[in-house]
Amino acid sequence: MAAVTGLAFASTLGAQPAKTARLVVIGGAEDRLKDRVILRKFVEYCGGSRARIRLITTASAQPAMTWESYRAVFSELGVDNFEQLALTDRDSAFAPQLSQEILQADGIFISGGDQGRLMDVIWETPAYRSLHEAFHLHACCLGGTSAGAAVMSRHMISQGPAVLRPIKWATETDIGLGFVSNAVVDQHFSERRRLARLMSTLAQRPDLLGVGIDEDTALVIERNRSIEVIGRGAVTVVDPSRMQSNVDDVGLEEQMEMLGVVIHMLPSGHRYSLDSKLQAARWPESLRRVLTRLVAPGPLRG
Amino acid sequence: MAAVTGLAFASTLGAQPAKTARLVVIGGAEDRLKDRVILRKFVEYCGGSRARIRLITTASAQPAMTWESYRAVFSELGVDNFEQLALTDRDSAFAPQLSQEILQADGIFISGGDQGRLMDVIWETPAYRSLHEAFHLHACCLGGTSAGAAVMSRHMISQGPAVLRPIKWATETDIGLGFVSNAVVDQHFSERRRLARLMSTLAQRPDLLGVGIDEDTALVIERNRSIEVIGRGAVTVVDPSRMQSNVDDVGLEEQMEMLGVVIHMLPSGHRYSLDSKLQAARWPESLRRVLTRLVAPGPLRG
Repeated sequence: MAAVTGLAFASTLGAQPAKTARLVVIGGAEDRLKDRVILRKFVEYCGGSRARIRLITTASAQPAMTWESYRAVFSELGVDNFEQLALTDRDSAFAPQLSQEILQADGIFISGGDQGRLMDVIWETPAYRSLHEAFHLHACCLGGTSAGAAVMSRHMISQGPAVLRPIKWATETDIGLGFVSNAVVDQHFSERRRLARLMSTLAQRPDLLGVGIDEDTALVIERNRSIEVIGRGAVTVVDPSRMQSNVDDVGLEEQMEMLGVVIHMLPSGHRYSLDSKLQAARWPESLRRVLTRLVAPGPLRG
Repeated sequence: MAAVTGLAFASTLGAQPAKTARLVVIGGAEDRLKDRVILRKFVEYCGGSRARIRLITTASAQPAMTWESYRAVFSELGVDNFEQLALTDRDSAFAPQLSQEILQADGIFISGGDQGRLMDVIWETPAYRSLHEAFHLHACCLGGTSAGAAVMSRHMISQGPAVLRPIKWATETDIGLGFVSNAVVDQHFSERRRLARLMSTLAQRPDLLGVGIDEDTALVIERNRSIEVIGRGAVTVVDPSRMQSNVDDVGLEEQMEMLGVVIHMLPSGHRYSLDSKLQAARWPESLRRVLTRLVAPGPLRG
């Protein structure tokens, strides 16, 4: 499969109808038994119950169980065209049939587990390129929960304890799928008290935004337009772009000084749209900057 | 005892030698067995081992044990003139002898326990007025740990669980001694994961700063001049003065939107002085504002 060039990207885009590309980034533990607010919304964004939705369980240590669980939920939500993608190892990621499946999907859902396992399998393979084409060129709706949320960002936290305070190198980061291109996403955020861990990461990478998503909560990113929080909890956005830190002056695992970190707590039910002049008038300057960066899709990769 | 008027305050101050008034606000669980960095500094700020230091155990449920513990520590630190103040109930707070003791002290240390118990005993009594005179007119060094730190602020958190996210009325506040006049102090801060609780409080009171102090960590406030963090952890300053929140639009215990909250993480070993132009040049605007407000003493009360 040939890499899609910038030129091809532009011309293909021009030929497409204006479809809304969305990411549904879930902080883990989404409700699958009761109201299923988030998964129901995901189905809607894929185009409704007749949509072709595909599941990636590669991150999961128990893919069969994960598949069974989601099969049941999506079936109850009326989705008949729901299949698991055969993405089990690097060889499988090169199969033309898999890329075809990805490119024909209206929605793709990435399960939880270990984000490193998924990235090891998919990184720089035709399946990876197809995921990017599906989102960028066909506006395929991408959902991901827990590890599936972490991989949405360009740089993801691959490991790191829930430190009490920001300390240097508390976390290790690794490269993710890159759909949320200017942020690092952390999941199970309030429940696992991960703010200090996220701040530790941002001290090293003040060029990124921090996005902490609570359990049973999703950040819906509508490309170039808006973000919305749905589900039970909140999304914490951490903006270090005006921060002063002493990260370069302290040793490994030492506490850091971080001055002027801006935090936005966005609770469920709130939508922030670049289209709304009314909203924008009351936003602090940082939120406008944050929003512009969050809705910007990463480059088409492959 | 006559209330000291503003005029008397000014003229008495003029007659005093320029002595540095300090608050040593400790987040609880300060080291009393090993290096005792914080208590050692407290003794130094009181004037050294020959200082007259008095202990207030009124907040404690076991004042005798608390007294014994601190007596041992201060004795090991070379302080001979260390006594407990007889402040056990409201009657005792009216005793002229007690006020005399307070006014003659070089340093007063307030133990942990229940901040409400201390405030119930001391509020609007001669002992309360004497504490204010001791600090404002004689530059007596005031130290307090845990509940003794919470009472330093004008408005203290009297109760509230460690909520996961900022919610409306998560906390109740009550009036404190008022030495840190523009802030609400929360203690055991990182250890008990209290940021969301502090933010909940600030949503209701955006006129105040939030000051979260870790265990075995102290914020030293030098009146009208500087703040310094000593001990093991960090001080988290939360500045809601540019925040946009929807606190007025949500119901009891509902999640809140809070946009543009600024956070400063100040680790141990850092001092921030209004005197230093070099420091000020690199401070974010919010930190300058925060510092000016934190070092401003509350009014002399009585």
